[in-house]
Amino acid sequence: MNRLFELRHTDTHSKARAGTLTTAHGSIQTPVFMPVGTQGTVKALSPDELVDVGSQIILGNTYHLYLRPGAEIVERAGGLQQFSSWKRPMLTDSGGYQVYSLADLRKINDDGVVFRSHLDGSSHSFTPESTVDVQRSLGSDIMMVLDECPPYPCSEAYAATAVERTTAWAKRCLTQFHASPGKFDFSQTIFAIVQGGTLPALRRTSADALVQLDFPGYAIGGLSIGEPKPALFEMVDICTDILPQDKPRYLMGMGKPEDLVEGIARGVDMFDCVLPTRNGRKGQVFSWSGTMNLRNAGYKEDWRPIDEQCGCYACRNFSRSYIRHLFRAEEILGMRLACIHNVFFYHQLVARCRDAIEMGSFDDCRREFYRNYEIRTSPNQMATISL
Amino acid sequence: MNRLFELRHTDTHSKARAGTLTTAHGSIQTPVFMPVGTQGTVKALSPDELVDVGSQIILGNTYHLYLRPGAEIVERAGGLQQFSSWKRPMLTDSGGYQVYSLADLRKINDDGVVFRSHLDGSSHSFTPESTVDVQRSLGSDIMMVLDECPPYPCSEAYAATAVERTTAWAKRCLTQFHASPGKFDFSQTIFAIVQGGTLPALRRTSADALVQLDFPGYAIGGLSIGEPKPALFEMVDICTDILPQDKPRYLMGMGKPEDLVEGIARGVDMFDCVLPTRNGRKGQVFSWSGTMNLRNAGYKEDWRPIDEQCGCYACRNFSRSYIRHLFRAEEILGMRLACIHNVFFYHQLVARCRDAIEMGSFDDCRREFYRNYEIRTSPNQMATISL
Repeated sequence: MNRLFELRHTDTHSKARAGTLTTAHGSIQTPVFMPVGTQGTVKALSPDELVDVGSQIILGNTYHLYLRPGAEIVERAGGLQQFSSWKRPMLTDSGGYQVYSLADLRKINDDGVVFRSHLDGSSHSFTPESTVDVQRSLGSDIMMVLDECPPYPCSEAYAATAVERTTAWAKRCLTQFHASPGKFDFSQTIFAIVQGGTLPALRRTSADALVQLDFPGYAIGGLSIGEPKPALFEMVDICTDILPQDKPRYLMGMGKPEDLVEGIARGVDMFDCVLPTRNGRKGQVFSWSGTMNLRNAGYKEDWRPIDEQCGCYACRNFSRSYIRHLFRAEEILGMRLACIHNVFFYHQLVARCRDAIEMGSFDDCRREFYRNYEIRTSPNQMATISL
Repeated sequence: MNRLFELRHTDTHSKARAGTLTTAHGSIQTPVFMPVGTQGTVKALSPDELVDVGSQIILGNTYHLYLRPGAEIVERAGGLQQFSSWKRPMLTDSGGYQVYSLADLRKINDDGVVFRSHLDGSSHSFTPESTVDVQRSLGSDIMMVLDECPPYPCSEAYAATAVERTTAWAKRCLTQFHASPGKFDFSQTIFAIVQGGTLPALRRTSADALVQLDFPGYAIGGLSIGEPKPALFEMVDICTDILPQDKPRYLMGMGKPEDLVEGIARGVDMFDCVLPTRNGRKGQVFSWSGTMNLRNAGYKEDWRPIDEQCGCYACRNFSRSYIRHLFRAEEILGMRLACIHNVFFYHQLVARCRDAIEMGSFDDCRREFYRNYEIRTSPNQMATISL
């Protein structure tokens, strides 16, 4: 029996699953959505509000925290949970993805990656070993290996090299993880990341090699970076067919509400995405019927809550008209209310799927979602939805 | 007996007083500090947080709300409390002060003031009657008369004209107040504003004339606009000597913590100021030992709360080091925590004074405050403190 993850239900019509992930800071019911706390805070929200909206686990970004305030500060504070007053489980990425997307003048070789800070241009490097060390200092419950995420599109040769490097780095991370003692009085765990671009054979190679290393959990990385949705979900399907049933699967950086439903249908247990807070800060909110932008003039005298079905603090107390006013007047409370609503909505969406999986009705739940939710996408981003 | 205001205790060593102000939306223990909700929200805070930090009544600014979202929108929403989900008492100013300080191309004559919006340059006018009408639409528990606030310094002749106009306008506001029915199912009240610059004789003339009009409450306006602190408090003393004992007195737009203590000592019951939220958003916080700016490098590894004596949400959960990190990283939560702390501190300060007045120990309370609190002022702003 795997103490980290217990698989409790598997859907009969899809690969959807419900389970329990147990960490030193508490248990998490999966499928789960993880809000992103890039710099040690989920933007616009307090830890109490996160508990209120139903967050079970949040993310921290190693790249950002390493640069500011610095891993040594977080370590001296007693770890990221202690520093930020978030008492529940926390996951940190390795920093690799941010190095590829944010940092300047990065140079990747087999040893690791050298980069310049996007904040002050200072020079730094990450190796598989150092990212484990940094995540030891941050004290996350779940840490991630350093991987190489090639851009989309990229050549097959480059994607293959990135898979080889990702496997080699995963091995070094696992070795360092076992060799380095924890800095705090609780245990941590580490997940590997499958790469391989949108090439089915490479995805299989990557997943197979990492499964051989027997990691406690696995992530699917390198997706949602511009590739068409059908290719994305094909890759997810390939990965979840190979990854062990008794270990958690995490689809990194995804996604829109419909992406979560589709990921769950393909056997993914964990999701993270900045959308609910990033879009919320711009006035875009999610509801069971689709998205809306509260800045629109149409809401000027709309006395309804954002979503009449919603039980969040924003919907229980404020009208669209008032929140529109707050956005127009550039008041912080507007961003706060939209973010509270959006994160609550994401948690409710995943909870509905989880409940349905447990009751054997996930197929109905998925159909019901599409019946009400208006999806706005460009044609090549349309998901292949096989109901 | 005055149903609006009950004077419960008067200090024997000073003019300090404790009372109860009763409005349609609840009772207020005075002295009271009123946070400023300029645009229908106290910046960075939610209504629930305001209740949490101990706010009994908050302000709304008529000038801002009239321009955006517009008084008619607030009226259709059911009034400012309904619109903003603040269920407790609310006070609105008349908009006059903002016209003088924010609007462009203002022209004042005996009829009223014509101005251009600072938002879009559109042309508007306020008359004594129209500001009452707007405040009827906003549905504040306490509305304020339109007054003329001359700049500091100004000629004696101009200050005298402003006093005459302020008296005439107060009379017209009171007539309009009695002639206009409320828009909602609760009653409102209206306060007059004493002007007179820093001229003792003019202050007396203004106060005497307004007292003759028998308003339910009185404000002291036109202060804290650049005049030296000794002159400011001399004017407050003159006014509170004249204003009726059985009616509430409100010192508009004040002030720093020491100003509140000195105002209370001179018989003021109500205060409002943007300082706790404006300074909080910049990282400046108040504590029983003085002010500090949390952005300072000295707090990098300071694991203490902002104020070890404080029981607010920020101090119960977060270190100076973490909040400093939030400010450096420009995270909204930093501003939120500093504002929560500052408003809580202001309420605690006034509550300590109130409790001391009731127990007959205000003098000790005032000395104790100065013993611990380091005041940073320029020499000409130094308060005359007679202990």
